[in-house]
Amino acid sequence: MIIRSLIVLFTAMLSWQCSSKNNEDAEAAIREVMAKQVEDWNRGDIDAFMQAYWNSDSLKFVIGRGTTYGWQKTLENYKRSYPDRASMGKLSFEILEVDVLSKEAAFVLGRWHLERENAIGGYYTLLWKKIKGKWLIVVDHTS
Amino acid sequence: MIIRSLIVLFTAMLSWQCSSKNNEDAEAAIREVMAKQVEDWNRGDIDAFMQAYWNSDSLKFVIGRGTTYGWQKTLENYKRSYPDRASMGKLSFEILEVDVLSKEAAFVLGRWHLERENAIGGYYTLLWKKIKGKWLIVVDHTS
Repeated sequence: MIIRSLIVLFTAMLSWQCSSKNNEDAEAAIREVMAKQVEDWNRGDIDAFMQAYWNSDSLKFVIGRGTTYGWQKTLENYKRSYPDRASMGKLSFEILEVDVLSKEAAFVLGRWHLERENAIGGYYTLLWKKIKGKWLIVVDHTS
Repeated sequence: MIIRSLIVLFTAMLSWQCSSKNNEDAEAAIREVMAKQVEDWNRGDIDAFMQAYWNSDSLKFVIGRGTTYGWQKTLENYKRSYPDRASMGKLSFEILEVDVLSKEAAFVLGRWHLERENAIGGYYTLLWKKIKGKWLIVVDHTS
C-alpha cells in the first residue's frame, strides 16, 4: 500500500507540474492556427484556411439549417458560399474563451465577423483535438 | 530509470483499464440527464429542466443572436420565450454524438425539435463538465 501511495503521489506531482504548462502551450498553438486562418481567408485562400480542420469524413460542420459531414464537403460548401473575394470580405475573429480540456482536447467560443457590403457575423463554438501532434478543429458549430 | 519506466507502465495499464469503463459511465450519465430534461420540459417544468445546467454566472448559452451568461439569466430567457405549455410544445432530442473527452469533460452534438403549432428545431452542441460529481452543461450552443 505504501508503494502504491507513493506512485500515486509521484504521478500527481508530475501531472500537476506539467498540466499548467501544457494548457498554455495548447492555447497558444490554437490561437496561432486561428490567426493564420484569418490571414489565409483575407488573402482569398480557402484551401489554406481549411488546413485548420481535421481532414476526415468525420469532421462536423454544424449550422442552423443542417450539419455537413466531412472535410471535402465542408471545403465545397465554403467555396460555393464564398465564390469570390467580394463575398469573402474581411474576416475577423474575437476569441472569447479557450478551454483546454485535456492534453488532446480543447473548446473555443468566439465571435466572427465578415466585413463586406452585406456584413454578416455571429458566434462559433469549436471542438479541437490534437491529432498526430497538430491541433485541429473536429466540430465547428457556427450560428 | 527502471523504476520510472515501471511507474509509467503501471500508470498506463491502470488508466487503460479504467478509461473505457469511465467513458461508458459518463455517456450513460449524460444520456440520463438529457432524458430527464425531456421529461421535465414536457411536464412544463422549466426549473427542473434547468437542473442540467451548471448553476453559475459562468454558464454560457449561445444562440445566433447573442450569448447569455449565467444560469439565472438563462432561466429567465427560457421562461420569457416559453411562457406557457402551448409555446413549450413537446420536446424531443436526437443525440448524434457523445464524445467523452476526459474524466471531467464531454461534448454532445444533437438535434432538438419542438412539436407545437409552429414547430421549431435545430442543432445543439453542448460542453459538459463533471462538477462535484455531477455532469452539467457548461456551454450550450443552439441554432
